[in-house]
Amino acid sequence: MNVIGIDVGGTKIAAATVNESGEIGPIVSVPTPGQEGPDAMLDAFARVANDAAQASGIAIADVPAIGVGTAGVVNTDTGTILQSTSVLKDWAGTAVANGLAARFPHAPKVVVQNDVDAHAMGEVWKGIAAGYETVLMVAPGTGVGACLLINGVPVRGAHHVGGEIGHLPIGGADDMPCTCGKFGHLESLAAGPALHRWYVGHGGNLSSPDAKDVVARANEGEAVAIRAVQTAGAALGRGMAAIVTVVDPQCVVLSGGLAQAGELWWNAMESAFRGELIEPLQDTPVLLGQLAGAAPILGSAKMAFDTLNA
Amino acid sequence: MNVIGIDVGGTKIAAATVNESGEIGPIVSVPTPGQEGPDAMLDAFARVANDAAQASGIAIADVPAIGVGTAGVVNTDTGTILQSTSVLKDWAGTAVANGLAARFPHAPKVVVQNDVDAHAMGEVWKGIAAGYETVLMVAPGTGVGACLLINGVPVRGAHHVGGEIGHLPIGGADDMPCTCGKFGHLESLAAGPALHRWYVGHGGNLSSPDAKDVVARANEGEAVAIRAVQTAGAALGRGMAAIVTVVDPQCVVLSGGLAQAGELWWNAMESAFRGELIEPLQDTPVLLGQLAGAAPILGSAKMAFDTLNA
Repeated sequence: MNVIGIDVGGTKIAAATVNESGEIGPIVSVPTPGQEGPDAMLDAFARVANDAAQASGIAIADVPAIGVGTAGVVNTDTGTILQSTSVLKDWAGTAVANGLAARFPHAPKVVVQNDVDAHAMGEVWKGIAAGYETVLMVAPGTGVGACLLINGVPVRGAHHVGGEIGHLPIGGADDMPCTCGKFGHLESLAAGPALHRWYVGHGGNLSSPDAKDVVARANEGEAVAIRAVQTAGAALGRGMAAIVTVVDPQCVVLSGGLAQAGELWWNAMESAFRGELIEPLQDTPVLLGQLAGAAPILGSAKMAFDTLNA
Repeated sequence: MNVIGIDVGGTKIAAATVNESGEIGPIVSVPTPGQEGPDAMLDAFARVANDAAQASGIAIADVPAIGVGTAGVVNTDTGTILQSTSVLKDWAGTAVANGLAARFPHAPKVVVQNDVDAHAMGEVWKGIAAGYETVLMVAPGTGVGACLLINGVPVRGAHHVGGEIGHLPIGGADDMPCTCGKFGHLESLAAGPALHRWYVGHGGNLSSPDAKDVVARANEGEAVAIRAVQTAGAALGRGMAAIVTVVDPQCVVLSGGLAQAGELWWNAMESAFRGELIEPLQDTPVLLGQLAGAAPILGSAKMAFDTLNA
């Protein structure tokens, strides 16, 4: 039996068939019509699902379930979007599960979750965290996403915002504004835009366009850029330590753009992380995700199988 | 059917029978022979269990299981103590489950967990958090204990230290030493001894003996004492916010000595807590535990029932 996993990104929507063993078919994609509204988005989901089935030589009518991983706060019980950024216009309020199911004559079961949760489920099912059940995944990039899996299931939360590590209060960020309007949260130091702001605000080159540029400057040895990268990495390490201290997961998995920034960032992150942990937690592994774009597709498919088997 | 719940404190060991509906028999207790070693402790457990059965008019041979909640880091799979403070001499390494079962001819099933986990299970089963399944319990006192329950089960952790909120890195505590030897952890501001140290270190009366005295001074209007109480309360609130941000539990339950310190402490705690949370989390209830000494007995009994029914 094959289901389809769909990963909704800001620029493209990718999908593939996945069987119960986690074998994934060819990944196909369509551009994300993010500014055309929910109907255009759901039409694109249906199209990419059809494309994925066709690419695997599977009849779409034989696909009993589709899993979707999308940006935004998702009510996983109803498959509805509760909150989203403006990158996806009018996305909040969209009944994704019902809307996508209605686009197929055989009305497959559709399940929807946050994209970071989908990514984490993928890495735990078939990636670097395979064999672990209790895992913290952290994805520093434009923001800082996270997912906490307990016994293989993401903690969704009473208000559907489980895993919102970006708004974790941390030390050393007291007067830094967060995207939520408050101050001193993890995202105000550890996210890519924060890293860039910190660099500019601490004497860096005013014409530096973004975090990627700062990381490149750091890797070339520019002193302010090095401090900016280390500050962001260390902030993430302290935030990870907070959650690991209380949850004691089997491992931490990192994903997202900054996790690929290189040794300078990684060493600052891991040093701050281990610097905060009590002795019994020191051997908690910190792993780099390995499935990249296949992870959220696999994780969305896993949620679909879990729902079918429930 | 009745099981027995045992709560191991530093000065007394309390126990009672509990039936499947959570009805608790008379609570009996014996002094804790903490400095006499593990055998004396286990003898005391057996004695208090016999006393509890007798007080309820139940034959001990009809009690199929005993639950124990004890200070220390517990391997709940084996019922063995992994780490403990010096209050209980040589307690680390004690095989509590096997040792207690062997003290009865009918060898009841014995399960063992950390006392804060037991307390939390009690409040979730029959106390202020009844009806909730995903709960953060925090107990500020001599240290800062905690328990995170997901779907009704305490998160024990890969290294058996789940719930160690005391060593959470928080802001505003950067140069304060923690009991673990590191700096800037929650316990270095939010625990009772830390509150007392903060008071003395910030101009308070050098002859003040302890946190209880500082709380009394604060409630009488002494300015430094008020700041000390508010600092400790606010630190706890920030720490709670960190965990609630990532886990999004249905409620937070407070227990422990400082939770009873009065409005001044409570308002500082709750104000800091809500000050950090994103909007969807603002209605997360913060509740004061209501079962007091019965909570860990009930929680230990609940673990015993859960094991029998597994």
